[in-house]
Amino acid sequence: GVNPDLASERQTASFSVEKLTAWLDGGAEQTRLRRAVVEAIERDPVFSRENQYFQSQNERYEAAVRKAVHLQKKMHEMGWSQEGPESKYIYRAVSGDIAFLLHRIFMRSISVLGSDEQIAKWIPPASQYQLIGSYAQTELGHGTYLQGLETTAVFDVTTQEFILNTPKISAMKWWPGDMGRSATHTVVFAQLYVHGKCYGIHPFIVQIRSLQDHSLCPGIIAGDIGPKMNFEHVDNGYLMLQNVRVPRENMLNKFCEVQPDGTYVRRGSQKINYFTMTSVRISLISTEAVTPLMKAGTIAIRYSAVRRQSKLKPGEQEAKILDYQTQQEKLLPQLAAAYAFHFIDNYLQELFDRGYREIQRKNFDMLPELHALSSGFKATVTQYCTSGVEICLRACGGHGYSLLSGLPSLYTKIIASCIYEGENTILLLQTARFLVKSFMAASTGQSVPPSVAYLAAAKPRKCPARNKLDFLSPDIYTEAYQHMAVRLISSTAAKLQDLIQSGVKKHDAWNQCTVQLAQAAKAHCHYLTVKNFAETVAKIESKAGIQKIMKHLCDLFALHGIFSNAGVFLHDGYVSGAQMDMVTASYLDLLAIIRRDAVPLVDAFDFTDKSLNSALGCYDGQVYQRLYEWARKSPTNKQISPAYEKYLKPLLHNRLSKL
Amino acid sequence: GVNPDLASERQTASFSVEKLTAWLDGGAEQTRLRRAVVEAIERDPVFSRENQYFQSQNERYEAAVRKAVHLQKKMHEMGWSQEGPESKYIYRAVSGDIAFLLHRIFMRSISVLGSDEQIAKWIPPASQYQLIGSYAQTELGHGTYLQGLETTAVFDVTTQEFILNTPKISAMKWWPGDMGRSATHTVVFAQLYVHGKCYGIHPFIVQIRSLQDHSLCPGIIAGDIGPKMNFEHVDNGYLMLQNVRVPRENMLNKFCEVQPDGTYVRRGSQKINYFTMTSVRISLISTEAVTPLMKAGTIAIRYSAVRRQSKLKPGEQEAKILDYQTQQEKLLPQLAAAYAFHFIDNYLQELFDRGYREIQRKNFDMLPELHALSSGFKATVTQYCTSGVEICLRACGGHGYSLLSGLPSLYTKIIASCIYEGENTILLLQTARFLVKSFMAASTGQSVPPSVAYLAAAKPRKCPARNKLDFLSPDIYTEAYQHMAVRLISSTAAKLQDLIQSGVKKHDAWNQCTVQLAQAAKAHCHYLTVKNFAETVAKIESKAGIQKIMKHLCDLFALHGIFSNAGVFLHDGYVSGAQMDMVTASYLDLLAIIRRDAVPLVDAFDFTDKSLNSALGCYDGQVYQRLYEWARKSPTNKQISPAYEKYLKPLLHNRLSKL
Repeated sequence: GVNPDLASERQTASFSVEKLTAWLDGGAEQTRLRRAVVEAIERDPVFSRENQYFQSQNERYEAAVRKAVHLQKKMHEMGWSQEGPESKYIYRAVSGDIAFLLHRIFMRSISVLGSDEQIAKWIPPASQYQLIGSYAQTELGHGTYLQGLETTAVFDVTTQEFILNTPKISAMKWWPGDMGRSATHTVVFAQLYVHGKCYGIHPFIVQIRSLQDHSLCPGIIAGDIGPKMNFEHVDNGYLMLQNVRVPRENMLNKFCEVQPDGTYVRRGSQKINYFTMTSVRISLISTEAVTPLMKAGTIAIRYSAVRRQSKLKPGEQEAKILDYQTQQEKLLPQLAAAYAFHFIDNYLQELFDRGYREIQRKNFDMLPELHALSSGFKATVTQYCTSGVEICLRACGGHGYSLLSGLPSLYTKIIASCIYEGENTILLLQTARFLVKSFMAASTGQSVPPSVAYLAAAKPRKCPARNKLDFLSPDIYTEAYQHMAVRLISSTAAKLQDLIQSGVKKHDAWNQCTVQLAQAAKAHCHYLTVKNFAETVAKIESKAGIQKIMKHLCDLFALHGIFSNAGVFLHDGYVSGAQMDMVTASYLDLLAIIRRDAVPLVDAFDFTDKSLNSALGCYDGQVYQRLYEWARKSPTNKQISPAYEKYLKPLLHNRLSKL
Repeated sequence: GVNPDLASERQTASFSVEKLTAWLDGGAEQTRLRRAVVEAIERDPVFSRENQYFQSQNERYEAAVRKAVHLQKKMHEMGWSQEGPESKYIYRAVSGDIAFLLHRIFMRSISVLGSDEQIAKWIPPASQYQLIGSYAQTELGHGTYLQGLETTAVFDVTTQEFILNTPKISAMKWWPGDMGRSATHTVVFAQLYVHGKCYGIHPFIVQIRSLQDHSLCPGIIAGDIGPKMNFEHVDNGYLMLQNVRVPRENMLNKFCEVQPDGTYVRRGSQKINYFTMTSVRISLISTEAVTPLMKAGTIAIRYSAVRRQSKLKPGEQEAKILDYQTQQEKLLPQLAAAYAFHFIDNYLQELFDRGYREIQRKNFDMLPELHALSSGFKATVTQYCTSGVEICLRACGGHGYSLLSGLPSLYTKIIASCIYEGENTILLLQTARFLVKSFMAASTGQSVPPSVAYLAAAKPRKCPARNKLDFLSPDIYTEAYQHMAVRLISSTAAKLQDLIQSGVKKHDAWNQCTVQLAQAAKAHCHYLTVKNFAETVAKIESKAGIQKIMKHLCDLFALHGIFSNAGVFLHDGYVSGAQMDMVTASYLDLLAIIRRDAVPLVDAFDFTDKSLNSALGCYDGQVYQRLYEWARKSPTNKQISPAYEKYLKPLLHNRLSKL
């Protein structure tokens, strides 16, 4: 049965959980479809994650391969296709613990960068798994800075081949997933040399393992890079190339080609490449950042409703820890953030889809804005969600620290999202570059993209709020965020110009402003998130109490941000100290209000117990019983440790006295 | 050889690294002693941590037991004793990866809570390892709130025994170290019942495993609680008691006793118990929080001096990432914090030693202050250092995410320090209670302990700084911190009083202020840390450049704190927006200054390569070579995965075409 402490939380929901779920999914039909996929996957024992917390890296890898192979069968059985409506729910259903994700990137890179002939040659066998692909870009010595990659590909005009080499240890490919143990082929990014001239980074298809017996091909040194903080199921690999020859046709040549005589021809637009990065960054926001935060919030909030500790009132029963203001202040802002980022993800997806349609019509105008938004939001959302998951973990005390809570693995996985697909600081600075440029353009009356049009708008000088209730007005706080973002962007742009005018060289001046530029980029994204949340709430048809609770969450998200970043709002007096006290008062009031719906609000995320894989977060709230049951399954309880015979027994017996 | 990029960093040190090391150690003689201990331990292959990152929980446990047993032998060989001057360096030398730490707590609790007879009976065999002890306090359902523990001990007057029981699942002991697989005995905390009356929590010595064959004793159910985020080497355990009888003499009875007829007698002062907690909290600051931050800083800063990525100036070589302002802004404040906390630890140790002398003279006056300081600093330092280690990890990009960097294990271990020995939020609120009380006393002219005397002092209304250089004056920034701490404490105390006066019940009012109370406690500790750093710097005799660089670090620590918490300084206008710009300017200037000495400053921590156990952090800076060498040793490279024969081969071969 359900723990009464959790059951009681559900009886007082101010809204319909089922309706909120459907709304979050984009309609009841989507909810039905999602649940059908999840159920089909979870019913199949091959996809079980039951023993995940007890498995070694080798076992995790084996399980991930098993699941990936089985998934092909499953999809066939179920009539699901890669392009079908179910596909977006499959990854969620398997909780990411599956192999061959890089195989998909391998195929995507060929589709995007390859000629029609190359696509025709490689995509059919790849989609049939007649080969397993990987994507070898990152090297030991170079990550985000692609121009610095050191692997070389020299064109040999006599044999019509490229000769690939790893000239030094830092040039070794390092990190590519599916490459350490699985892949037979990979796309290698290398500096192209023809007749001694370097043409920069180009992609080459290289076979690395035999299709017959999986042994390494001649000239290939490859293996697994060893243990990581998470992703034990992925065989991130290393790769050294020693005079590896591939035919001329293996350079992906949609945009540039080396002709038989060595003539280098560039053709078409490479702008689409940016669009690929943009697409990856936007798509990971939901699956790799927001979903884990939703899961962590579900676990921590349910646990906080059944964990009783200490007394709030003398003489009464011990209180649920969710009733403590400090616990609410840890968890409820994370809950609000999960909703806020779910909505900004919708906004970005829509923008991206619009951009994609434009690009298909050869209109690349939206690219700079999309690039800036995808970079900035990838950085800010992954950062925020990572902190949020950590807060949830710590808010569960000792039990949160057990792997069985599910929280450590969520944390150790989400933290990687701050690094991969572009290191967050570097991404923020790319956004900042766009913001400074847009600010300059706006100041001189030029037109700028919609997301930065606010930089040109006239601003009020002071926040008009007169009491704490005024701060529950979206206009009031959205304008405060806008003002703050404009101030940070404009003051940093001014500092940059001052430095340059005072004779500092442009690149030095840029470096001296980067701390503030990164801050400005964050402010921009924070503002857009608040604004989008408020607009989303305004558009909800007021039914079943959803608008009301979403309005509370929006207020909480906004006021939490002001409370936690008070300095940037107070700095120029836009918000006064007295007004900041009003913000604090309204913020703390909201905690007590949202606390009442906290459990229904996480229930609405609709995670199954299996997908949470948490002894603390299950729907029934039977946390202690489950912790005990799961712990007993641990390999540490499956055998008498050899440590007893080897060390403990001699220690105890050698000097054993009569106690 | 040393990587030239790291060697060059050492040639330009503005101070003598060796002299700084000696000063940090408390004298050259201490340095010599420490190095001798570290060398003896590291030379011994039993203590090797070479394969640590590849080991399973079972293997880690076995290694920890092996090391603990071997350490006894080693200490005997070397002539080291538990009380000797070497002992404090042993734990550092083995890097904590050793069993039987709870055995020590077992002995300490008997020494503190036991009568002379009990000490005479239990301490000699325990110190000879004729038994292995643990300390069973925490339960599944209760951690920090000890009064809520549910294990019972009922006195049976007919047999003169206590009958111990686990009445429900939440009462199961859960988490005690050394208990899951090793311990033969444990101190169990249970609610004492005599003739049906409950006398609250008392400690009982209970045997849980046979001294002959290590089997569980009758009525005992015990085992390991399974995988955790770290501490794989510790067998944290669970324990259920079913009518387990222990003789009357097994209740530790220095402070209270059940006499044969059931009469309950309380004697002496229990205040000393607080002192034990105080002692544990203070002692963990250095070993569990500051040392890991120093290690993480060493790894990240050395790596940042050899990692070159992207170009700072067009046409030049790629830049060391340590030359980027954003990288400096991540790492150098953590470096400054490590020094700041090392000094506050010295301050707390001294205060604690003084307190201990007073207590020996039966003077308990210092206890409340010591309790407040140890709680507040345990919370703030572990929190700060945990964030700091995370920042260091992320600042190393993808390679920081590899376990081989050493950073993930530092992080997953240090995060536990925020939870154990008192959950941080609860500790902060204990400090806050002391602060509010002291503030009230000070306002009415009563005398208060030295660390809170500042609450009574008159304060200037505005920060007098007129340019950015003024903010390099310790008086200026120390006063700013003091002002801010006083304001947060006084305004929260006022809110509390207002609520009570408006009719809110005392406990509700307290709960409604806890977010701000916790903030006030942090502000108090932050102020004392800055003040103590400035005073430490002022006392350094100006030799070998040490004072100068320490002054820079002190300035950086202080200004980083103002920059990062601008809101609390701006709130009442004590610091103006224009002054905050000066703070920012000075802060950013300091980054560039300290960057020059960054590597010598971490070298001075004097960690051996073995103690860092990091492919990125070694003294020679050969990071890529070492990552590759270590990765090849991974078990993921030791065998062909069964996944090939089972899954990959069938997949590839079933549909293999002629490629």
